[in-house]
Order: sequence, then C-alpha cells, then structure tokens
Amino acid sequence: MKYQFSAAMQDMKPSAIREIFKSLGQPGAISLAAGNPAPESFPSEQMAQIAADIFETRAATALQYGTTEGYTPLRELVAARLKTRFGIDTDQNMTVITSGGQQAIELACKTFCNAGDVVICENPSFIGALNAFRSLGACPVGVELEADGMSIDGLEAALKAHPNTKMIYVIPTFQNPAGLTTSLTKRRAIYALAQQYDVMILEDNPYGDLRFAGEDLPTLKSMDTDGRVIYCGTFSKILSAGMRVGFVCGNEQAIQKMVVAKQTEDVHTNLFFQMLCAEYMARYDLDAHIEGIRALYRDKCACMLDALDRYMPQSVQYTRPDGGLFLWCTLPESVSLSAFVAAASDNKVFVVPGTTFNCDLTAPSQSFRLNYSTPSKEQIEEGVRKLGAVLQEMV
Amino acid sequence: MKYQFSAAMQDMKPSAIREIFKSLGQPGAISLAAGNPAPESFPSEQMAQIAADIFETRAATALQYGTTEGYTPLRELVAARLKTRFGIDTDQNMTVITSGGQQAIELACKTFCNAGDVVICENPSFIGALNAFRSLGACPVGVELEADGMSIDGLEAALKAHPNTKMIYVIPTFQNPAGLTTSLTKRRAIYALAQQYDVMILEDNPYGDLRFAGEDLPTLKSMDTDGRVIYCGTFSKILSAGMRVGFVCGNEQAIQKMVVAKQTEDVHTNLFFQMLCAEYMARYDLDAHIEGIRALYRDKCACMLDALDRYMPQSVQYTRPDGGLFLWCTLPESVSLSAFVAAASDNKVFVVPGTTFNCDLTAPSQSFRLNYSTPSKEQIEEGVRKLGAVLQEMV
Repeated sequence: MKYQFSAAMQDMKPSAIREIFKSLGQPGAISLAAGNPAPESFPSEQMAQIAADIFETRAATALQYGTTEGYTPLRELVAARLKTRFGIDTDQNMTVITSGGQQAIELACKTFCNAGDVVICENPSFIGALNAFRSLGACPVGVELEADGMSIDGLEAALKAHPNTKMIYVIPTFQNPAGLTTSLTKRRAIYALAQQYDVMILEDNPYGDLRFAGEDLPTLKSMDTDGRVIYCGTFSKILSAGMRVGFVCGNEQAIQKMVVAKQTEDVHTNLFFQMLCAEYMARYDLDAHIEGIRALYRDKCACMLDALDRYMPQSVQYTRPDGGLFLWCTLPESVSLSAFVAAASDNKVFVVPGTTFNCDLTAPSQSFRLNYSTPSKEQIEEGVRKLGAVLQEMV
Repeated sequence: MKYQFSAAMQDMKPSAIREIFKSLGQPGAISLAAGNPAPESFPSEQMAQIAADIFETRAATALQYGTTEGYTPLRELVAARLKTRFGIDTDQNMTVITSGGQQAIELACKTFCNAGDVVICENPSFIGALNAFRSLGACPVGVELEADGMSIDGLEAALKAHPNTKMIYVIPTFQNPAGLTTSLTKRRAIYALAQQYDVMILEDNPYGDLRFAGEDLPTLKSMDTDGRVIYCGTFSKILSAGMRVGFVCGNEQAIQKMVVAKQTEDVHTNLFFQMLCAEYMARYDLDAHIEGIRALYRDKCACMLDALDRYMPQSVQYTRPDGGLFLWCTLPESVSLSAFVAAASDNKVFVVPGTTFNCDLTAPSQSFRLNYSTPSKEQIEEGVRKLGAVLQEMV
C-alpha cells in the first residue's frame, strides 16, 4: 500500500549523527562525530556487583511492572542531589524518572505544544531535541548562539515575532553542539523574558556535572519562582548511556501531566536499572566518581585543543569549552563545509556538519562539531592532524 | 504560571489501572485488577547468570549508546521466531526493538495519524493503546467486540462513517480486557475491509504465546500481502515486564519512519536488557519456558472460573478464555457497576470497571475485568468469593 505518514513525520529523516554512528565499522576510522561518553566513565565493576545483588534479593520486583513516575528511592535520591548540587527547590517541584533525557524533552513538548506552536531554541542546538519538537509538529525557531549564550535581542525579537511560542529550549551549560555556556547575566535575562512573554523554559542539562574549568553557574531552574522551568537531566554521561535513565523536575501539575504522557509511551523506564542507579548512589560517592570523569575530559579536551592549535590553519576558529563533550569549529567563508566534511570522511575522519544542528534545515553553516569524549587521545591527535591537513589544502 | 497544556493532553488523566496499582499497599487487599504477569513467569536465575556474563565480557558495549533499531542479534532472533511461530514473512518485513509493546503502539500512531484522525478499535479495548492514540490527538472509535471478535458490520459502518480512519487497532488473540479471540473468519474479514477502505491495521499481540486451550490461529500479519499490518509484540509476559523490551514488525518503509520517531522519544531501548533477551533466546529454549507459563495460567484461569461458577449469581456472565491474562464479567442491568466496584473495594477486592476500556469515555458499562495471572490461587478463590458475596446482596 502507499503509506500516508503524519504531517509531522512526513519529511523527517533519521538523525545524521546516528547514521554516521552506524557507518563507523571500517578499519582505521576515527570518529570525532559521536556524542558517546568515554567507556571509562561507566563504573561497570560496581554496577555488576549491584546487579548481582538485585537479582539475588529483589529480582521479582526488578523484573515486574513499576510505576510510571519511577522507582521511589531513585526519585528521592535524584531530588536530593538536584537540591544540593543544582540549587533546585525540590519541595516546590516533583522529580520523575524518564527513559533518558531525550524522553523528558519529547514529553515536555507533547504535553505543552500543539502542532504549529513555536519552540525557541539556541541556533545551533541539539538535534535530538529539534527532531523531537518536529516529530510533534512543533516548530523550532532559532536564536543566534553567541559566546555567552543566546542573543537576548534575538530572543526578544523571536518572542515578538511568534506569539504562538510555547517554550524556550536551552542547554545553558556546555551546550551541544557548541560547547558554550550561558552567562549568569543571560540566564537572568532569558528567565525575565520568559516571564514577560509568559512562556515556559525547557532547561536541558545533560552536561552540567562535567565541568573541568571555571566556576559553576546557577541553573535556570534554581531561579524559577513561578513553575516556568522544566528541568531535564540524565545519568547517561555519568553512569551509563545505554541504560536510558534520565529524569525531569518541575512544578507538580506540569510533571503530573507529563507522567500521563509517559504512561502512553513506555509505561515506565527499565526498572532494574532504576534500582541499580539508586543503589549506586546509596553505596558509592557519585560526586567522587564524577570527579574522575571531569579529570578525564579535562585531559582529552586539552589534548584536542592542543592538536587544533598545532594543526589548524589560522583562519579556523574553535570554542574552548569549560566542560561537556564537544567543541565547535568554524571554517573561513572561503571553504565549503560540505566539501570539507566529505574530504574528512574520505580520510576516514568523521565530524558532524553544523547544518545538522540548525533550526532551519535549509540554512547554511560554516561550522562543524568535534567530540573529545569518545576517541582516545591518540585518535584525537591523529584525527585533528588529518583534518588540519585536509584544511591546509582548502583554505 | 497558568499552564496551557496541548489540546490532546489537556483532558487526559492517568490510567485508572495504574492508579489502582499504586493503592494496593493495604494489608489484606486482593487485586484482581492488575495486568502483571505472575512473578514465576520470569526466569530470574538464568537472567542473573546472563547479566553477570554480560558485565564480565561486554560491559562497555552494554552500557554505551546503541542503535535506535535495536541490538542486531536480538532483532534477528525475534524475526526468526516471528517467522516460525507466527507465520510472519520476515524477508518482506523489518523488525525493530521498542521499549515495550506500548511504545510500538504509540509510535505507529505518531507515524501515521494526524490530530483528528480516527483509529477504529474493538470496544472495549486496551486502555494503554486508547490513551496513546488520545495523547496524539487521534480519536479512538469503538466497534462492538463480540464473542468471536469485533463486529464486522460495525467495522464496515465505522469505516464508512469515518473517511479519516487511518488504522484499525486490534488485539486478535486473548484480547485485553475481554479475554476473547477473533475467529479466523473475522480475521480475514477485517483484513479484507482494511484493503477495501485502504487503511492500515495495528495488530497487538502481547498474549499470543499464552494459549492454554484450543488451537492457534494465524496472525493478521501472516495474511498481509500489501504491507498493511504493523505487528507489535513484547517480552513483558514471558521474560520480564519491568525491563520494557518489545518489538514491532512491518514493511521496511513504514518501520524506518517509526525508527525516526523512536529516535526522538528515547534514542533506543535499554541495551543491556536487549542483550540479555538475545542471550536468553540463544542459550535456553524459550518455548519450553513459555510452556511452563501456559500451564501456570491454565491452572489459575481454571481456578478463577471454578470460583466464579461457585460464587457468582446466575445473572452474572463471564468469558471463558483460551489464554492470556484476563476474563470479562458482565453484570445484570439491575446492578450499578460503579456501586459494585465501590462495594468490592470496601471489601478490599479490586477490579477494573469496564468504563475504563471504553473508546467513548462517556459511555456506560455493565462489565469489569478480572485478572488471574497476578493473584495466587488462594487470593483468586477468596477474591471471587468476596465479589460473589457483594453481588448476592445487589442482584
């Protein structure tokens, strides 16, 4: 039969990044394209021990259906950490477990946006969020991302131009793809504009624990006085990405509605791994574990910046992140991004072209994303060297 | 702030069943309301051994991001079993892993339905599916479920009345909530009408392995000559419900689009448990394990029917299922369903009122669902005895 897809899904394609991820099997390939945490960041020995204990003592619970809100001890541990670590008033808010941070983003959009509604995003932004919005018929509208966060003038202009804006989606800390962090001044300005135009804020903070330089800044959620901010987090970058355990925190009325939506998507998140996360947090010092990941990424990021400094032509610009997994390179106007990405790929080095992260899929880009968490330091050195060699011939 | 929920989510409430599930803590409570598999149906010792082996040999893979389509060995094993066990031509179809059967249902609707589109359902039907359709703004339209499946005249009338019908949702085998099975004649008639009106069929088969009497009937998917049927299945009733591993099978073009939608919902399903399922299927005889579950449910269902035969007033009718987890009781017109459910609850016996499963939420019901998989035989006997005593005073 001839399929008639829904209007929202009709033109949607698989994420370019996840497609690249599939084609990395060839020998000698170096991927600077993925967003995978370093395998060393997963405490697999401790997790193995906890898993054995859960099977030994609580298998019947762990393998049975659970509640949609999530495993209560984990919800409590996450809420407590959101309070102490991120300044979030958990008395006024409700925390539930989601199937990765991705699900929290999608549920927020499903719960609040109708088809045609606008979600204002940093441009560039996280492809997974943009596609979640698109899959529900919501329209991502981009506001230029500057070195200290989204343009505030641009945000106000977008809010004026789009009265059907429902929310502002931001990754204020170590943004994906750009690795940039929104300044305190801009965090306050974004919140004030959200109040003024009475829209919600969807704060995505998957990398907030991964700071390896500079000082922590308050989350937008910690500034939230009127239940306007939905805050998404995840264990993907600190315990395991493959287990798909994330969380969302916000005003109870808002979160309860998201729970209803979650019930229709997957009933609940894998219960065994929810129990495993809770037990890990109870038995071990999660912050000490995270300190090790920070040290690892500090080292890898420095390695990548050092290689970029050595191999890149002067005309190539790149961000110097204080944390997270990514940095963002911008080519001079004289170089074609698509020609560069193709030439890099011919040399078996994979990067993600900036067009992937654009809110407007027809807009051009001169930038590409580099990841330093997944490759080894040798791969970073070799990959950047090859990219530099490709570019030396193009500038 | 005052929240403006999406039009689809605005009026949605949590599933009554999952709410009942939460309030079962009180001592002496007997739940005949849940849809939980018996804990004995989970092979937890074998799963514990496999989990230990995965942590020992493949932890880095199991804890890392995977592909949205699912773990390839599991996809192959599931496809092979769909072919041998359910007659599904897997050369012509693609099988991907979902986060429970629930996600497959929701993704099918998201991929094919716009807000306002109609999904024709058996009435009563599975609340999780009805709510998934509603959460996306699609409209479930009910067709009366008869002893041998949905009314074919009713289906044709609904197709005529609703030209914006996108799919027919059916649970042809041991239907939830009614425990009824669609006859071969009606399966063929449903498929023929789907062809005639050029709509899709969403075939949900979570209980297909749980036959304990009678002969297997062909799946609708096995009759599918033109890629019209999307088939959903799950490991929830045979290995573990809490792990949230299901699957969907259909024409490649249709399934590829569902994969794009899945990517935006949870990136992929918990990879560790996908690997665990695959390893279980490779090491053990899944069908022998399922034979044990069938014997268990044969025994429990017989126990419930025996108690119903002894304790229920003559005027109460109930189905006699050949498999699955549920049976369906219908009260005489003289008894108020809500008064009965309330009286049962006062006696600490919980059942799910039929109104929960109606496509039209304002429609009345004289029926309620009973589950025999979760309670012990002692609880079944005692629960049905109490229900009988309550009813003896009401008829």
